[in-house]
Amino acid sequence: MLYFDNASTTKISTNSLNSLVKASENYYNPSALYEPSSEVKKQIEDARAFVLTKLKAKSGSTFIFTGSATESNNSVLASHITRKDKKYLISAGEHSSVYECAKHYLQEGYNVKFIPLNKNGSVNEQALYDELSEDVVFVSVIHVSNETGAINDIKQITNRIKEFNKNIIVHSDGVQAIGKLDVNLKELGVDYYTISAHKIHGPKGIGGLYIASPNKFKPFILGGGQEFGLRSGTENVPHIMAFKNAMEDVKIVNFSKHKAKLLENINIDHLLVSDSSCVDNIISMCFKGVRGETIEHILEDKGYLIGTGSACNSKAGYNRVLSDIVPKAYLGGAVRISFGEEITAEDCARLGQELTAAVKIYREKTTR
Amino acid sequence: MLYFDNASTTKISTNSLNSLVKASENYYNPSALYEPSSEVKKQIEDARAFVLTKLKAKSGSTFIFTGSATESNNSVLASHITRKDKKYLISAGEHSSVYECAKHYLQEGYNVKFIPLNKNGSVNEQALYDELSEDVVFVSVIHVSNETGAINDIKQITNRIKEFNKNIIVHSDGVQAIGKLDVNLKELGVDYYTISAHKIHGPKGIGGLYIASPNKFKPFILGGGQEFGLRSGTENVPHIMAFKNAMEDVKIVNFSKHKAKLLENINIDHLLVSDSSCVDNIISMCFKGVRGETIEHILEDKGYLIGTGSACNSKAGYNRVLSDIVPKAYLGGAVRISFGEEITAEDCARLGQELTAAVKIYREKTTR
Repeated sequence: MLYFDNASTTKISTNSLNSLVKASENYYNPSALYEPSSEVKKQIEDARAFVLTKLKAKSGSTFIFTGSATESNNSVLASHITRKDKKYLISAGEHSSVYECAKHYLQEGYNVKFIPLNKNGSVNEQALYDELSEDVVFVSVIHVSNETGAINDIKQITNRIKEFNKNIIVHSDGVQAIGKLDVNLKELGVDYYTISAHKIHGPKGIGGLYIASPNKFKPFILGGGQEFGLRSGTENVPHIMAFKNAMEDVKIVNFSKHKAKLLENINIDHLLVSDSSCVDNIISMCFKGVRGETIEHILEDKGYLIGTGSACNSKAGYNRVLSDIVPKAYLGGAVRISFGEEITAEDCARLGQELTAAVKIYREKTTR
Repeated sequence: MLYFDNASTTKISTNSLNSLVKASENYYNPSALYEPSSEVKKQIEDARAFVLTKLKAKSGSTFIFTGSATESNNSVLASHITRKDKKYLISAGEHSSVYECAKHYLQEGYNVKFIPLNKNGSVNEQALYDELSEDVVFVSVIHVSNETGAINDIKQITNRIKEFNKNIIVHSDGVQAIGKLDVNLKELGVDYYTISAHKIHGPKGIGGLYIASPNKFKPFILGGGQEFGLRSGTENVPHIMAFKNAMEDVKIVNFSKHKAKLLENINIDHLLVSDSSCVDNIISMCFKGVRGETIEHILEDKGYLIGTGSACNSKAGYNRVLSDIVPKAYLGGAVRISFGEEITAEDCARLGQELTAAVKIYREKTTR
């Protein structure tokens, strides 16, 4: 079975799993006072420092380990969407953990404005800047779209926003950017940045949040005061170690040949959502008059697991991000292909052929 | 090194760790549409059904997996402390993840009333009932105190509250009860019940929440709609499997002989907080004019790891629960001894002797 759904989740690496198992041995609660606990505490601080260095964080910033990127995103919004007389700008291309949360605040009467997208799923920057006004206090723009692989120029966006008003808080969800872009938080200039382990061969159940100015952050989960009081709950030490390991092993691989091979083998009409400015290993495309789910099942029988879009959108029954940018006739026939190093360019070529065949079969069946 | 701090965290069992590692192989996102994901989805539902059956849940209820018991507790309070014209009753003996959260709402102007404790750390039931009034909508009482092992009679408390007004929501934090009491949720009659894996030889980083009436619960973490929309975030399948395994292996062991052995070997004046009505394997006691932390370090050198109280209280610099029930002169000299099956009654006897010796040494040094 060849796995083409890395944007959804990746297999935990042997290294990362070994770290997790090893750390499970040293199980002492890092907040206890005896010596073995101090050692565990030190390991957590080493992991935190490693992540901060790896992502080139600015001095005075911190990074907290959370239960998931979804929790990280919810935390940031809860911390800053607090006043009904202020305005909050959210890109329409956000992951559902930002989008649904923002929609909830909108329904509660907060002035949340969703910013429309370009055809490839990136945010329409001009539309964003046009919404800047004195009452704007918070902006959230995803770094790399989980649906289309579109890259938002977070550095430029943050600069323009901070030029308008340096007090506006900027958050970016970088879950899909890690391992695809060389993330430099100092350069990006954001106030918050969300990451996750299970998209980079780390374990499920752990996320992280970069916090540029800890004193501006209102904790979302209260209790024992772990993580400097910014996120309570017993520290998940084995997962923290496994996350660190996954971050150590992250490599940015050039997948342009893979993408080219895939596309040159799709010999049937389609709408390519992921243009050449997108990351090369998340490819969204739509086939008119076809059901993506059926295509997925045909390919599964051939040994290829692909997505129809974010698993976090699967419950909505339609693809929210694509529905903003793709003509309706194409919407039902969306597939998302995403992959990592274990996939070769030849695998991509074969998938392209099989995908072509699958769409043909579907169309023949439905027109008979 | 003998470990006497089980109330803080326990070592993950080989069975539970094996489940976790095995489930890491089958890494597919349960929300994806292909067949391997459906299998994973089924495993999650099996685990959920197992927990519900094991805890004798009422029909129509559900159980969600969370990132920690702290998250579970925060979720319940966020769901129900929503109106400033209502009244919320919280026992003063709650774990910090309920207490600090409730304190936060109090500071935000909500009418939160903390109910005082009895000498052993259980809630003063009469004081609780005296606070019942028409505007009370929510009550939270911990099942077994993490500080003293005191048992609250949740069945009786829930009955009395529901007799007064059946619409009052009752939450109980059962983290320390699992493995100590035979929990029967139908009998307890609560609306919410919180549990955690890492107190019963499961992994850190996963908690759970029993929800008697899902339609009354307002989700705390929004996003992809996992867990029936009640808790978003990619499901932590390996941890769910490991949690299920830990729940399968839970046994209620009679530790009365252990406690007796410990106590009969403490031959120096002390204040025993954990009376005979408490669970037998969490024992809180205080020594006048002694620093608990120093006693802990002396015992550590002898090969015994004990606590001075909840790790989740260690950052507060004092023991909040004990400060309500123990005379000031005793407060600094608090120790908490908690243990599981790997500890024998003889280990407890020896710890009693070493503890006596440690207190003697401390007192001799400080009076010289």
